[in-house]
Amino acid sequence: MTTSFPMNGGDAVYSYSKNSQIQREVLDGAKEMMKEAIIKNLDIKNMFTYSSNTFNIIELGCSIGPNTFNSMQHIVQVVKEKCHDNNLEFQVFFNDHVNNDFNTLFRSLPIDRSYYACGVPGSFHGRLFPSRSIHFAHSSCAIHWLSKVPKELLDEKTLAWNKGLIHYVGASSIVVNAYVAQFEKDMEMFFNARAEEIVPGGMMVILSPFSGYRYLNFFGSTLMDLVNEGMLDESLVDSFNVPVYFPSIEDMTKVVEKNNFFSIERIELTYPKSKLVDEADAKTLIINLTAVLQQVFINHFGNEITEETFTRTILKSEEISAWMKINYEKACQLFVALKRK
Amino acid sequence: MTTSFPMNGGDAVYSYSKNSQIQREVLDGAKEMMKEAIIKNLDIKNMFTYSSNTFNIIELGCSIGPNTFNSMQHIVQVVKEKCHDNNLEFQVFFNDHVNNDFNTLFRSLPIDRSYYACGVPGSFHGRLFPSRSIHFAHSSCAIHWLSKVPKELLDEKTLAWNKGLIHYVGASSIVVNAYVAQFEKDMEMFFNARAEEIVPGGMMVILSPFSGYRYLNFFGSTLMDLVNEGMLDESLVDSFNVPVYFPSIEDMTKVVEKNNFFSIERIELTYPKSKLVDEADAKTLIINLTAVLQQVFINHFGNEITEETFTRTILKSEEISAWMKINYEKACQLFVALKRK
Repeated sequence: MTTSFPMNGGDAVYSYSKNSQIQREVLDGAKEMMKEAIIKNLDIKNMFTYSSNTFNIIELGCSIGPNTFNSMQHIVQVVKEKCHDNNLEFQVFFNDHVNNDFNTLFRSLPIDRSYYACGVPGSFHGRLFPSRSIHFAHSSCAIHWLSKVPKELLDEKTLAWNKGLIHYVGASSIVVNAYVAQFEKDMEMFFNARAEEIVPGGMMVILSPFSGYRYLNFFGSTLMDLVNEGMLDESLVDSFNVPVYFPSIEDMTKVVEKNNFFSIERIELTYPKSKLVDEADAKTLIINLTAVLQQVFINHFGNEITEETFTRTILKSEEISAWMKINYEKACQLFVALKRK
Repeated sequence: MTTSFPMNGGDAVYSYSKNSQIQREVLDGAKEMMKEAIIKNLDIKNMFTYSSNTFNIIELGCSIGPNTFNSMQHIVQVVKEKCHDNNLEFQVFFNDHVNNDFNTLFRSLPIDRSYYACGVPGSFHGRLFPSRSIHFAHSSCAIHWLSKVPKELLDEKTLAWNKGLIHYVGASSIVVNAYVAQFEKDMEMFFNARAEEIVPGGMMVILSPFSGYRYLNFFGSTLMDLVNEGMLDESLVDSFNVPVYFPSIEDMTKVVEKNNFFSIERIELTYPKSKLVDEADAKTLIINLTAVLQQVFINHFGNEITEETFTRTILKSEEISAWMKINYEKACQLFVALKRK
């Protein structure tokens, strides 16, 4: 076992970031020498003739595991099966927003993984990787997150003011259209970026939950309980909109075709076995959604109301479970396999 | 501005990592479909014919900025100057131990950087990247950290028991040799890994502090104060050894030549202008070392003794400053430029 001692994190009084003048002097002292060494010695002509035999995979919206590790191992195995090339090496780039907890992600990387691992912070609605550097892109339960709440919904003087609701389901067509327009704008940026990054012949597989919207409204209904009890101002609920849009086959087809750099190899709604849905396990389901939605709620309502809302919604588990049994619908997700033309 | 909402970090009750069954069901439901899509569509033959025109740089032992950002920008600029190729894209891999604070690193990445940024967790004494995937490696103030305290020093029955000292400076030759042997073992692993990762014609520049050891003993002397006041058991000081070795030109030459995959293009001790040393600014210097050493101390002595030791050592700043003026020695560092044969 090797041990390791990181510099002090954060930016407090004794942090490394505020106390690294020594190291800076070392660097400044060597800047010119480094420049000379590069100009004189770097063998540009030859270095690009060596091809690295590396298969690069990106996971867009990785969050913090364990699901992402499972997916990546699966992709590596399948590509190995297909290639029969023992010299192939794999590099996986785990991407998520810069405020994702990469520390936790890194500390839980499987020890027996058969790939080199990197973390890449940033929005997948923009460029993240060099041109033609990626062979396979994967994204699960991520592209339904919009880059922001459609701005039309934030003006209480317009018809897009989403009174009493926290989402587009059950809302006016003006609200729905605002969500669709934002989704299309986001996907235009998403596909433009991926078209540059993925090599011709490379692939992208996207999974997106389709039936997840059914459960959002339980949180909305708890918020309205708080309004009715006088604990929360109604306008705060009216101005709150969860920035997720669950695309249909038609939605996805439209954005892929508009981009025009990918061929659709397979697109369908699938109905996987879901223990949570089939057993009407509302409690686990609501707690899962809590882990996903907490930051969005805290941003808008603060810690106290968020905690109250989640606790109360979890307490409604039996009621929700009964509703699930009566209104049974198989779990459903969108599967899309694309190939870079 | 886009907004982003990470899943809950950590592994507490409502964390994403413990509450992501929904997302797992989505993935499980698509495993077979993904496999079919890959087997059928992935265009292996063609995808490796596209070369990505990317210049890959690694920073080994990056810590959390701001120094590392400064170095990377400098290297990118110099390589651009040398190449005159506007199509060249840069990707920088920031490496440090898995318990480095990558979250802080990522959140402080310069917005106007001219490279794609990744984080790579893991010890640089082992493999971190695919074969022949790296064009330039840089490491500053990092390779002097040993992978562990030489194990001979941990047995109080041997002559390598480092009584009353916390480092090899001023210690017996048996102690010094144990440090040297550990450094050589570590560098053997380091260079074996880099020889695989760096393309022929690629480069590695290493900077290492050379005069830093001068100040370690002030911490040792504070620890002995605590022993003399009965606050600390002497055997705890005897068994404590800071795992850093400051290599000389001869040390580095020996390990590079033994590895035999790199040519030494330049190696020398340099004497950069150091405001801290020249102005005998002991306080800043000691606080800098505190940021670097805190984890090592806490690991061995716990929080309380560490804080007491650091506070007291900082309080000795005037005394240390006076000592620095009398025993003036220009700041000194080792510069090494290597080229992959």
